[in-house]
Amino acid sequence: MRPYVIINAAMSADGKISTKEHRQTKISGDQDFARVDRLRADCDAVMVGIGTILADDSSLRLKNPDLIAERTAQGREEQPMRIVIDSQAKMPPDGDMFKKGTGRRVIFVSDKAPEEKVAVLAKQATVIRAGTDQVDLGLVLDKLGEMGVQKLMVEGGATLLWSFTSQKLFDEIRIYVGALIIGGTDAPTLVDGTGFTRAEGFPRLTLKNIEKIDDGLLITWAKKE
Amino acid sequence: MRPYVIINAAMSADGKISTKEHRQTKISGDQDFARVDRLRADCDAVMVGIGTILADDSSLRLKNPDLIAERTAQGREEQPMRIVIDSQAKMPPDGDMFKKGTGRRVIFVSDKAPEEKVAVLAKQATVIRAGTDQVDLGLVLDKLGEMGVQKLMVEGGATLLWSFTSQKLFDEIRIYVGALIIGGTDAPTLVDGTGFTRAEGFPRLTLKNIEKIDDGLLITWAKKE
Repeated sequence: MRPYVIINAAMSADGKISTKEHRQTKISGDQDFARVDRLRADCDAVMVGIGTILADDSSLRLKNPDLIAERTAQGREEQPMRIVIDSQAKMPPDGDMFKKGTGRRVIFVSDKAPEEKVAVLAKQATVIRAGTDQVDLGLVLDKLGEMGVQKLMVEGGATLLWSFTSQKLFDEIRIYVGALIIGGTDAPTLVDGTGFTRAEGFPRLTLKNIEKIDDGLLITWAKKE
Repeated sequence: MRPYVIINAAMSADGKISTKEHRQTKISGDQDFARVDRLRADCDAVMVGIGTILADDSSLRLKNPDLIAERTAQGREEQPMRIVIDSQAKMPPDGDMFKKGTGRRVIFVSDKAPEEKVAVLAKQATVIRAGTDQVDLGLVLDKLGEMGVQKLMVEGGATLLWSFTSQKLFDEIRIYVGALIIGGTDAPTLVDGTGFTRAEGFPRLTLKNIEKIDDGLLITWAKKE
């Protein structure tokens, strides 16, 4: 039984997730940060691609003490499981994800990941090989289901979102659209990767909800069956 | 007195305006096509960049006979003025814009445009030199104001929108967000060009309106003063 997959991401009004230098950019505000933390708290696991870790050294942790207390009062771990998709085991062993917060960290690597790097990471995380050249996301979802993850939040970046959307391995995609223009041919967008052609067809969505938050809006789409 | 500038464009849920092969892609539906035609009919002039003409051979004309009749009943030309920003005079003299519809066509070129190409275009359009290497959009707006254009619709593409937004030469930006994902590092986005850096600051917007149309939504932003 695979988890329910919610992709959550923020982009500028013109669809960019950061500047051309790949610098993290404040797209939303406090109200949206609180929403994202609430969503993290409600999920069993949160996931990013290795590119996001290398760019931002994100700890992926839930920060709001009230939400942490709420989880523990419900008999859950303080933190959702924190997952990185990292085909070649490039995860820095001194990353903030290991230093901050409690709970389980899981790194999915492919057969291409060097054994010595895997051994280092295995000291502070569960390292799972899933896939030959690249991490196989279908297999990842199977394994997460076996591990009891029922609700998974995928936070990006653009390459991981391409993998999830191109393989139609998501249930919802929640996109915060911020009140600014970033522009740039080389700026990363919400979904990068290879990109679809018309002949292949595009993943189609169903509009579920629109909500004004901070100076922008949150659009919730479901995968169209 | 410069015209009121409305940028109108459509993008996928992930901010793309066409596929990586730059193929025009149906992002909206009939209801939105009608909205765009209504907006064209309400404007004194519509504008695109030369890239859009070269990609799509767009005629830029108003097609709906009722809207054409409405304009003439108001004593206006059948068609809004059709404008192309074309620094090097690459506009094909046999383009659909010349063949279809009535009314004035205006091509803005820079001093870089070869005289012989300008001479050919001048047979079927008003060709105006405005700018040295590139067309100077501030000057274009001044000239359009002198020509009596009070309301200008800018339809793209991504490079022209970069020029308008980076120079803050717009009043409104209306973005239709379609219910599909296109993806792709190389797919053109709503605003391409050089892109902003954090240090420079970004053009900020004010959310004016959200409206569900077809399977997606129309977001209307105003430039934040």
